[in-house]
Amino acid sequence: MKALRKMQAARGLSLESAGTPAIGASDVLVRVSAASICGTDLHIYGWDRWSQGRIKPPVTLGHEFCGVVEKIGDEVEAVKTGDFVSAEMHVNCGHCHQCRVGEAHICQNLKIIGIDQDGAFAELVKIPAANIVKLDPAIPERYGAILDPLGNAVHTVLAGPIAGRTALVTGCGPIGLMSIAVAKACGSSTVFATETNAHRRAMAKQMGADVVLNPAAEDAVAKILGETGGTGVDVLLEMSGNPTAIQQGFKALRAGGRASLLGIPTENVPLDLVNDVIFKGATVQGIYGRRMYETWVQMTALLKAGRLNLEPLFGERVNPRLEENQYGDEACLNKERRR
Amino acid sequence: MKALRKMQAARGLSLESAGTPAIGASDVLVRVSAASICGTDLHIYGWDRWSQGRIKPPVTLGHEFCGVVEKIGDEVEAVKTGDFVSAEMHVNCGHCHQCRVGEAHICQNLKIIGIDQDGAFAELVKIPAANIVKLDPAIPERYGAILDPLGNAVHTVLAGPIAGRTALVTGCGPIGLMSIAVAKACGSSTVFATETNAHRRAMAKQMGADVVLNPAAEDAVAKILGETGGTGVDVLLEMSGNPTAIQQGFKALRAGGRASLLGIPTENVPLDLVNDVIFKGATVQGIYGRRMYETWVQMTALLKAGRLNLEPLFGERVNPRLEENQYGDEACLNKERRR
Amino acid sequence: MKALRKMQAARGLSLESAGTPAIGASDVLVRVSAASICGTDLHIYGWDRWSQGRIKPPVTLGHEFCGVVEKIGDEVEAVKTGDFVSAEMHVNCGHCHQCRVGEAHICQNLKIIGIDQDGAFAELVKIPAANIVKLDPAIPERYGAILDPLGNAVHTVLAGPIAGRTALVTGCGPIGLMSIAVAKACGSSTVFATETNAHRRAMAKQMGADVVLNPAAEDAVAKILGETGGTGVDVLLEMSGNPTAIQQGFKALRAGGRASLLGIPTENVPLDLVNDVIFKGATVQGIYGRRMYETWVQMTALLKAGRLNLEPLFGERVNPRLEENQYGDEACLNKERRR
Amino acid sequence: MKALRKMQAARGLSLESAGTPAIGASDVLVRVSAASICGTDLHIYGWDRWSQGRIKPPVTLGHEFCGVVEKIGDEVEAVKTGDFVSAEMHVNCGHCHQCRVGEAHICQNLKIIGIDQDGAFAELVKIPAANIVKLDPAIPERYGAILDPLGNAVHTVLAGPIAGRTALVTGCGPIGLMSIAVAKACGSSTVFATETNAHRRAMAKQMGADVVLNPAAEDAVAKILGETGGTGVDVLLEMSGNPTAIQQGFKALRAGGRASLLGIPTENVPLDLVNDVIFKGATVQGIYGRRMYETWVQMTALLKAGRLNLEPLFGERVNPRLEENQYGDEACLNKERRR
Repeated sequence: MKALRKMQAARGLSLESAGTPAIGASDVLVRVSAASICGTDLHIYGWDRWSQGRIKPPVTLGHEFCGVVEKIGDEVEAVKTGDFVSAEMHVNCGHCHQCRVGEAHICQNLKIIGIDQDGAFAELVKIPAANIVKLDPAIPERYGAILDPLGNAVHTVLAGPIAGRTALVTGCGPIGLMSIAVAKACGSSTVFATETNAHRRAMAKQMGADVVLNPAAEDAVAKILGETGGTGVDVLLEMSGNPTAIQQGFKALRAGGRASLLGIPTENVPLDLVNDVIFKGATVQGIYGRRMYETWVQMTALLKAGRLNLEPLFGERVNPRLEENQYGDEACLNKERRR
Repeated sequence: MKALRKMQAARGLSLESAGTPAIGASDVLVRVSAASICGTDLHIYGWDRWSQGRIKPPVTLGHEFCGVVEKIGDEVEAVKTGDFVSAEMHVNCGHCHQCRVGEAHICQNLKIIGIDQDGAFAELVKIPAANIVKLDPAIPERYGAILDPLGNAVHTVLAGPIAGRTALVTGCGPIGLMSIAVAKACGSSTVFATETNAHRRAMAKQMGADVVLNPAAEDAVAKILGETGGTGVDVLLEMSGNPTAIQQGFKALRAGGRASLLGIPTENVPLDLVNDVIFKGATVQGIYGRRMYETWVQMTALLKAGRLNLEPLFGERVNPRLEENQYGDEACLNKERRR
Repeated sequence: MKALRKMQAARGLSLESAGTPAIGASDVLVRVSAASICGTDLHIYGWDRWSQGRIKPPVTLGHEFCGVVEKIGDEVEAVKTGDFVSAEMHVNCGHCHQCRVGEAHICQNLKIIGIDQDGAFAELVKIPAANIVKLDPAIPERYGAILDPLGNAVHTVLAGPIAGRTALVTGCGPIGLMSIAVAKACGSSTVFATETNAHRRAMAKQMGADVVLNPAAEDAVAKILGETGGTGVDVLLEMSGNPTAIQQGFKALRAGGRASLLGIPTENVPLDLVNDVIFKGATVQGIYGRRMYETWVQMTALLKAGRLNLEPLFGERVNPRLEENQYGDEACLNKERRR
Repeated sequence: MKALRKMQAARGLSLESAGTPAIGASDVLVRVSAASICGTDLHIYGWDRWSQGRIKPPVTLGHEFCGVVEKIGDEVEAVKTGDFVSAEMHVNCGHCHQCRVGEAHICQNLKIIGIDQDGAFAELVKIPAANIVKLDPAIPERYGAILDPLGNAVHTVLAGPIAGRTALVTGCGPIGLMSIAVAKACGSSTVFATETNAHRRAMAKQMGADVVLNPAAEDAVAKILGETGGTGVDVLLEMSGNPTAIQQGFKALRAGGRASLLGIPTENVPLDLVNDVIFKGATVQGIYGRRMYETWVQMTALLKAGRLNLEPLFGERVNPRLEENQYGDEACLNKERRR
């Protein structure tokens, strides 16, 4: 079969011929229908410092995909040949403290398919049966191929109450944009979004944001406080990883609010803990990956019910050049260190 | 001023002339713009056994209303003359155990305006400032007059997670119908509704229910189990108070599900605790009134944002005859003992 | 090896010679150090109706035990030969809705080792590695052999807040007694216990109950309401399965309280839903098994830290006659249908 | 009556004659039995920059006390003359967003008795009835006079699950020491404590800490990771406000853990958000004041039940010199900006 692989410890990827993966008793072999390029993939392509420390060539990339089950291992019961599926590509160990208390998504021994072992940029990919997520045939393939980042968004939005609450999305890369749609679908009363890029601000509007602000051109914090009667927003959904955006997000958060942080800063962030967290009685949550598998259950239920309109996100998929993919640079940065 | 009052311990109400209520330092006087007739009011009109034990004539009825602030007491700071307002008519004591732990809605010494003291079927009504809820002018008067039952619905739906979850509403009286709209607005993926009355089933569809069933004509439990892959619904929103509906609701609830009970049965209900609660690991919640005032904050945020379309509920308000009000008999029954 | 087995569909058990269990790649073979006789075992011995419907002889009984790992399968990483261990004997499927949302203890396809397949009344028992729970060597064997029922108690007590709260334990069989110790260790301010058996009431005192009542001889509800200033207890831990105890427990529960039901009634229980659940705004939880594996983590941490004194429970273990085991008849009843 | 007052905008306090406070209809007049000197009081005495910006002389200090009700206003029902009481000295407005959603402790318009209006360093103090907390006569006066800081500790420890969990207290000033006692009483399996002061480390042991470390002399993070099998602690209770302690606390926190921050840093703290919060999936909580009044209910229940041994804290109260009060400098620092 064909596979897009990292063959050497150097810049680049190559389309190779590879053997069909051999599956074990509890594995599933999936024929890939569609896959997405994540920012992480671009970083591995470029062979940056992070990649050099993590990737052990040769390896097939690809960790966002959907496909059809081709073959199942002898002990597999829950999946059958012909099923339309996607997969959680984080493989947890099952026995560390976190796995034992229901927090498998932050397993101490996590391995990632498409990073640490052969992934989905291939005709066939091997996945442990436990990681397979069956998809309703009503879900389009293009949606099935972005469930990894969509799951990040669903995980972030639903990490606390959102119905009847105001929210601020800081950073409108793809996951930020998805978060807007998820927050609105789940009853957020007013969704604010901040973003310096004009094109993304336009998309934020399309995704359903009620108030979209450019923090480079206006005092976004003052605007948000004004619109909320001086109180601030109930929920901060931090998607940028940008220190200034994080700090402004905290200033716009109401006392008693929730700050859910998904964006990945590249350095330490000085926080005014006294005024922004402690005196505010705020709750700050680090968000990583997708809850295994509660996030998938929520996400696929919302998709099957047609509650999430993500069409604006697919508007630019015609551009074939890797460098100008829809995710953009910031997203890459985020995604690189997220995984 | 004119007021609709219960003057004697007997059937009937009368339109009387009454003095303007005198307000204390922490009270507010409101000029009533619109009020709703609750089933409880019909029971008091009819002078049933419950009324005989509770009502001390003379008293002005009316506990669902909105209006404009006419006058405020000397110590009132949060409300001013001219504000468009509604009110929580349950007045809590502030010092019992429940008031002390943030559960004022189940205060041990609750009094109800319009039941235990003069209410809103009058030109002017006196309300403690703490119970006043300011309304955005964008909220229509007809919505402002039904916030008491809408609050019941919001309280029930948001008593636990609803986003990305399936729900079953048993009983499509007005609060059941409102619950459908609230559940959909807050991200429920599939809302099932059961109701024996054909007209109400049609309204359930209008309110957004995905699957509407007539339990008198079909095996609703089997249908729901079938539609959920044998698992059952995540959330039961029990609005009927009918023992059979309650029992069927539990059978349709998935293991690990949430059953939120608002409807008021008139007698003890035999429950299969082993199979429907214990082995299921289910959570059952009694729901009463509205959380003070979290429910009001959520409800008014949803209304202001235009997230709740309740128009179908107002379609029949032209009928002037008290006996055929839109709430119907079951609702009366519920509301009678709810308050 | 020797094993205590059910060989035929009839009353009795027999001590048999059996082959050493063959283990798979993800299994562990454990040499049993100590095992407990559960009420369920007595029912299987007696071959009652439930046993006749569930048990498929021949099968080795025993689902409460501890031991030392003798051998591990090829893929087992988290356990090694010589480890002192116990095990969760409920084996979940991993792919049903409940397993997917973190509620494996109420898996739709649960199988029980010692009931549905060969158990721990044998020299050696085969257990899936995922179900093995490593025990600190400081935990005594007699404690290691009762972690299944102790886990029921921990699961029930910690199913909601308990610190600084009053609690009522209805029914002081072994799990009820354990619950007293757990509630006190976890900060319950006052633990009430009701029990008709004088010997058990004495043990309840020994376990740390603050107020022990005999509901057959005194008005326990009135006493509890009196001791709590008329408010009632914050938490009901229902351990009896007795309909009268359940009903009294609800009457003694405060508005806004939590009722966690573990005891198994043998028939439908008529509940005054209006006054005991709905108007009270109560939360009722069905409790089954042990959370996998959060309960085990909590339980073993408490044991390792010496926070639970269960010594009174072992006072009677010298009696070798099966019929008069320490668990008693009511416990059997409970345990029979619990598993 | 005599009162200890700040008479001028300058260093110092003076013992003055003052008139008996006049009480309103919903106020209570309390005869002070015992009062504590908080670090804040020392700062006001010293007239530091914070004091200069906040205090408007003349004002009577004192916000930690207990006493006996001398007189009640006409509308007061829940308190009567002769009651033994303490009080929450934070007075909330009742109508801001936070007050409306059950978060009165972070009210937007909070005023503090003893800071913003006359306090308890006087024979008599006026308190709104709603802020009065009745104390069981079994609670000693010396405990009654420190419920403000003890409430900080209870609020912090019980801001999330603690039973069966490991905890780290960073900073063993008085509130840190109290937190150790509270955590143990509420079922924490192992309490670690870090503190550079030898005397305080000894007290931490007395209060029940299992492992006490000196971060100036040993690698506390490595020790804690070692003792927890490399996992880290479940709960961080940050009581120091010291940036290094905060950073080390986060390093010692397990993935998925809870960090509850009470200590007040005097400057921005650079945080490694990626590794310490986001990838860890940690929850960080700002803790301020005491929940009104849930914390008081929990605290007084624990005290009445004798679950908290705070005797070591009173060992040094014989020293009459203000400068060497038992709270020490770090506590002052914390308390100054906490209030």
